Amino acid sequence: MSETIEAPAPAGIASERLQSIVERIERLEEEKKALSSDVRDIYIEAKSAGFDVKALRQLIRVRKMEKAEAEELENLLDIYKHALGMDA
Amino acid sequence: MSETIEAPAPAGIASERLQSIVERIERLEEEKKALSSDVRDIYIEAKSAGFDVKALRQLIRVRKMEKAEAEELENLLDIYKHALGMDA
Repeated sequence: MSETIEAPAPAGIASERLQSIVERIERLEEEKKALSSDVRDIYIEAKSAGFDVKALRQLIRVRKMEKAEAEELENLLDIYKHALGMDA
Repeated sequence: MSETIEAPAPAGIASERLQSIVERIERLEEEKKALSSDVRDIYIEAKSAGFDVKALRQLIRVRKMEKAEAEELENLLDIYKHALGMDA
């Protein structure tokens, strides 16, 4: 009844694996942060070159949407071509 | 009264500058997207290694907050040291 309950031995392999996972995620997040900072710098450069930052951000958004729409159209086209046996 | 109003000449230099700005922003955003995809892959790997993804995300958040708090503390310490002339 009064015997000592030992803590389970640390799960060696799992903890090393977790360490590796966490480190890799954090390194990638750091790189993303650095890229975001570079983007911010370009907007600052654009502003001091006389461009309107709001308009520029909107332009980037529109171009991104248009690119996504073009890709979606391309994908649908491939599916339709495939359905008609046009990709053989 | 009926004279032709000419469109202003395209602003050559500004449009090249804008082109360069847009391209650089888009390239950096592409790189960020690739990194986000790498992060997603690591979470998938973690999940298949038996880790709980929600807990892992929370762990990353907590570590980030703790790091930010430690840095803030360090900054305040520097300010206080400077105020007391301890950084000479």
